[in-house]
Amino acid sequence: MFDFRSDNVVEAHPAVMAAMLAANTGTQTSYGDDDYSRRMADGLRAVFATDCAAFPIATGTAANALALALLAGPGQRIVAQDSAHVVDGEEGAPEFYSGATLRTVATEGGKFRMDALAEAIAEVPGGAVTLTQATELGTLYTPAEIRAIADLAHAKGMLVHVDGSRFANAVVALDAHPADLTWRAGVDALSFGATKNGAAMAEAVIFFPQHLGDDFPRRRKRGGHTVSKMRFVSAQLEAYLAGDLWLANARHANAMAARLGAGLAAIPGVSLAAPVQANEVFVRAAPALLNGLEARGFQFFSRQEGMFRLVCAWNTSDAAVDAIIAAIRELAAERAAAE
Amino acid sequence: MFDFRSDNVVEAHPAVMAAMLAANTGTQTSYGDDDYSRRMADGLRAVFATDCAAFPIATGTAANALALALLAGPGQRIVAQDSAHVVDGEEGAPEFYSGATLRTVATEGGKFRMDALAEAIAEVPGGAVTLTQATELGTLYTPAEIRAIADLAHAKGMLVHVDGSRFANAVVALDAHPADLTWRAGVDALSFGATKNGAAMAEAVIFFPQHLGDDFPRRRKRGGHTVSKMRFVSAQLEAYLAGDLWLANARHANAMAARLGAGLAAIPGVSLAAPVQANEVFVRAAPALLNGLEARGFQFFSRQEGMFRLVCAWNTSDAAVDAIIAAIRELAAERAAAE
Amino acid sequence: MFDFRSDNVVEAHPAVMAAMLAANTGTQTSYGDDDYSRRMADGLRAVFATDCAAFPIATGTAANALALALLAGPGQRIVAQDSAHVVDGEEGAPEFYSGATLRTVATEGGKFRMDALAEAIAEVPGGAVTLTQATELGTLYTPAEIRAIADLAHAKGMLVHVDGSRFANAVVALDAHPADLTWRAGVDALSFGATKNGAAMAEAVIFFPQHLGDDFPRRRKRGGHTVSKMRFVSAQLEAYLAGDLWLANARHANAMAARLGAGLAAIPGVSLAAPVQANEVFVRAAPALLNGLEARGFQFFSRQEGMFRLVCAWNTSDAAVDAIIAAIRELAAERAAAE
Amino acid sequence: MFDFRSDNVVEAHPAVMAAMLAANTGTQTSYGDDDYSRRMADGLRAVFATDCAAFPIATGTAANALALALLAGPGQRIVAQDSAHVVDGEEGAPEFYSGATLRTVATEGGKFRMDALAEAIAEVPGGAVTLTQATELGTLYTPAEIRAIADLAHAKGMLVHVDGSRFANAVVALDAHPADLTWRAGVDALSFGATKNGAAMAEAVIFFPQHLGDDFPRRRKRGGHTVSKMRFVSAQLEAYLAGDLWLANARHANAMAARLGAGLAAIPGVSLAAPVQANEVFVRAAPALLNGLEARGFQFFSRQEGMFRLVCAWNTSDAAVDAIIAAIRELAAERAAAE
Repeated sequence: MFDFRSDNVVEAHPAVMAAMLAANTGTQTSYGDDDYSRRMADGLRAVFATDCAAFPIATGTAANALALALLAGPGQRIVAQDSAHVVDGEEGAPEFYSGATLRTVATEGGKFRMDALAEAIAEVPGGAVTLTQATELGTLYTPAEIRAIADLAHAKGMLVHVDGSRFANAVVALDAHPADLTWRAGVDALSFGATKNGAAMAEAVIFFPQHLGDDFPRRRKRGGHTVSKMRFVSAQLEAYLAGDLWLANARHANAMAARLGAGLAAIPGVSLAAPVQANEVFVRAAPALLNGLEARGFQFFSRQEGMFRLVCAWNTSDAAVDAIIAAIRELAAERAAAE
Repeated sequence: MFDFRSDNVVEAHPAVMAAMLAANTGTQTSYGDDDYSRRMADGLRAVFATDCAAFPIATGTAANALALALLAGPGQRIVAQDSAHVVDGEEGAPEFYSGATLRTVATEGGKFRMDALAEAIAEVPGGAVTLTQATELGTLYTPAEIRAIADLAHAKGMLVHVDGSRFANAVVALDAHPADLTWRAGVDALSFGATKNGAAMAEAVIFFPQHLGDDFPRRRKRGGHTVSKMRFVSAQLEAYLAGDLWLANARHANAMAARLGAGLAAIPGVSLAAPVQANEVFVRAAPALLNGLEARGFQFFSRQEGMFRLVCAWNTSDAAVDAIIAAIRELAAERAAAE
Repeated sequence: MFDFRSDNVVEAHPAVMAAMLAANTGTQTSYGDDDYSRRMADGLRAVFATDCAAFPIATGTAANALALALLAGPGQRIVAQDSAHVVDGEEGAPEFYSGATLRTVATEGGKFRMDALAEAIAEVPGGAVTLTQATELGTLYTPAEIRAIADLAHAKGMLVHVDGSRFANAVVALDAHPADLTWRAGVDALSFGATKNGAAMAEAVIFFPQHLGDDFPRRRKRGGHTVSKMRFVSAQLEAYLAGDLWLANARHANAMAARLGAGLAAIPGVSLAAPVQANEVFVRAAPALLNGLEARGFQFFSRQEGMFRLVCAWNTSDAAVDAIIAAIRELAAERAAAE
Repeated sequence: MFDFRSDNVVEAHPAVMAAMLAANTGTQTSYGDDDYSRRMADGLRAVFATDCAAFPIATGTAANALALALLAGPGQRIVAQDSAHVVDGEEGAPEFYSGATLRTVATEGGKFRMDALAEAIAEVPGGAVTLTQATELGTLYTPAEIRAIADLAHAKGMLVHVDGSRFANAVVALDAHPADLTWRAGVDALSFGATKNGAAMAEAVIFFPQHLGDDFPRRRKRGGHTVSKMRFVSAQLEAYLAGDLWLANARHANAMAARLGAGLAAIPGVSLAAPVQANEVFVRAAPALLNGLEARGFQFFSRQEGMFRLVCAWNTSDAAVDAIIAAIRELAAERAAAE
């Protein structure tokens, strides 16, 4: 397995698939009013240690767009990191669902530059600030950093959303309680990712002040996201939470990324573009080296000239990590010899 | 199994679940550019015997809304049966995705009254006519009826969509080639249902003139419907088509509905509200009878005072059908004796 | 002046034009924060004898769409008369601005059939009921009828909007206080028309519970309706209200329509399609007669085969009315003689 | 007259008001199918020396939003200067009307940085680039600069829009033919401003490839911008073009700005933040000086700490310009003496 493109190109965890299979018995009320969905929501309330509203949904883009639509309305503002998935990877879904305008703020290390954020929301007509945890550069916001952002936002009448498509990786990396990374730090809504960390197609949207989600069922249906046999989404989430599978999966992915980052950092001519804090490794190397790596059958995404991303997943093996480290070491040595 | 509420409260077919499980191996390019999605599209092109564009999607509402969004634009018109799911069951998803206005036309037996349709589109600024096959009253449009609607629509510059959440039931009931019910009769786009007929969460959107679907990928993404591990949707559809499972499932459901309809029609005090042509049975009976049926543990939906719907699915058993017939016969007899 | 097509094909009242001219002096803060806009709002509060929120706007479609957008949100419902301008004359503006779905209800004499309205909102997810005063058939809702509609709507959690593009005509015809036709009868928001009754391009949107309009300024700007030199809209409205010009204009138009209706009703072969209660006259006559009328240079709109509409405006003259009566009388006589 | 806040706080030109008054005679077909609107469109075709499509509209925000809606569709991209009015001054109108996402590009002197623009549209899914002429910093794009932007955009399948709310000021300042600043340089659509340069409430939207505007009438109506008595908008535009009033007005405003800029540049402690190329003067001065200026009754807008904007209009007088120069000179001298 030499595929480091993304954590969404890999398999789902067998326990998640088994749960879907197990859910395939008997009839269940359709459109989310089923036993699995109820248990899933209870499970998330236990994880976050609060009486939040929690809804299953099949995709991360829908999770973000619908969460934001309940935090920011027509003509209001969604303020995002310039590198955010909601900015470049969703074809305008947040604007479509919310009617709000989206504006970007400069980042450093994948995280908001606080001075730029303060300036951006100085005269904004309400809405939401959205941050990504872990960030698109594989870095992490500490609880204190989240609190600072939330205080800034709330002071301007804005609410706070976290795109947590890799939330599990952040939780284990920071060794923090999920509550400390969310509502205790002022977060109002969370896109709780699962698909990138072992689910097949399942995410959850969580509103910490429950009432913020009152209109969610109608908005979800209007978006075509109220899966009729919702049990098949919710059963995945149940299995994902059971026995802390979500944390175990993330811990493994993070460990693989750490091993990968350490291995690469030791290679002359190769450097890390950002500290490895979760399950992604951003590497700088000569373009020729990347071509060589592709020629050897490794798969990954280039971000820009001379920088590429390697993502570790819940099932990335030591062998795959070691193989790509070895390949890069050889390619770097060849290049050094040739110069 | 005494649950006749809908064909979306039941299980998925084991072969569909097995296909999802089998798809859980190795990495696949995300967001629909995977082997399963390609094979699924090829499969649909074979079924429809034409070089159409075909896309997987997880829900029927999204299928309808996105299909219509590519047939009707802002300020144009979507014209639907007054009983249509797009009118009452989707919280405005078609308008949301298309920007078009939706207007309804009177129906008879679940199907467009042709005079009313002609009047409704006499001065319309383009857009789409959408019909449901099988209809919300369990009845069917013949190829000639579809052709008449399509001719009317096309003459006004409108395109034609079919909401085929129960398309399979129509195909087997009419013993028609799928092409004869669609592009050969003038249909431009089809929501090809699978979830109600054995899939877990999978539908397809098909554009017969391929170019109508050119913008589909972007619109689907903007709607949050581009599932990252799309293989799990597409694998369901592959299994659904394999060995004509879709037709076998529908044939069974239709047979059960026929058996149920015949049984009920023979009971004094009970009558059918519409001919049983697909897998739904609409029954008129005294409200007290319905209460008695519920008291005995049967589940079903009432449509209006004194009318209720019984839906047969791919896995409805003879025993369940016979049990509800027997129960209704007894309740009707009790009522007759009491009067 | 033989043009009976509509009350929006005629001139503005000279006093309105004079007010615009008079407003063209000195600088004023732009985008509605000007002296004229403040006085106009005060004027409307005096007219309606309540502390409502009132905003100037340039078109009737925008007035309706923006008012409705604040009463009904995404996925909610706007319920309208089947003949309403918001249904057929605005290319989906209400849906565009609100995100709500629009559904129609059968009418009788231009007014809601109450049984059909009750059925239509029986299971609706909130939103607004909108009625037209005077109706598209030139008829009127009494305060009691409005109250009945409002009670029905409010009981279902829906708000009530009045499209009052001909509100002045209703006020004088019913000899009612403006408050009795609106907030005292349960109306939540009003599109207060002026353009059809003597203004050049000016309407107002009024919210009786003030807070309903809190978001109006932002929504108006997002719609591109915040005229920079707003004084030129507001000055029209000031002049329209001054000395009860609006009532005088409407009284004249209504009187002309009454004269016209009475004259036509007396002609054999001609009949009124609706009682003449405001400033519109709906006439049934043989199509050949209409052709003859057009041939003589009269202008009007046909609604459907054998029915046409004649609209009287603030400046329709006795002579024009008498001329068209005479012409129709002659044409009818010719036809009678020929038969 | 000491009001330098904006060119939209001042009066309309008397000839424009006279034209509205003169249009107030006889009946005209409503909703834009009138003689004035036809002549206005012909007039613009003559000005631009090409067979373009031209439509009247009442506000600049609507002009921009509707023009962009026909160049960029749902999920596509609108790329704008970071300082653009469409970004900060329209509450999301462009996104609302188009369904496209809006992203900003860094500017220098109010104009696109070409490297940043190239990067921003490198991987964009179609849509439009919009530039402002004159810019929000009072600077100008030359025909060659526009051509370079258009070539870049067209190569990526994007179209080009110009927000010309101060287009007249650019034409006279550059001494260029209107065609050279638009279609001959690759511009596809123009918001042709008039309100800031002498009209009361009138702008035009122009599509150079005519077919781009085919859907404009429906989209304008859906936005509530199809003024029923459109003659009153179109008559303003006719008067605005007649005898090149638009150029004369702009020439005067520019001359006043030049006089103002030259006067201020000569004052120690005061500097210009951008070259004065059209009718706006951006000044840097100590905050205390600004307070003093306000205390003396001058009106203007501060952009940020220590920078303020002075706008000259078609009717700004020499006396007003000289008065503010003198006041600033005195205040600067006082400050110098005090230090």
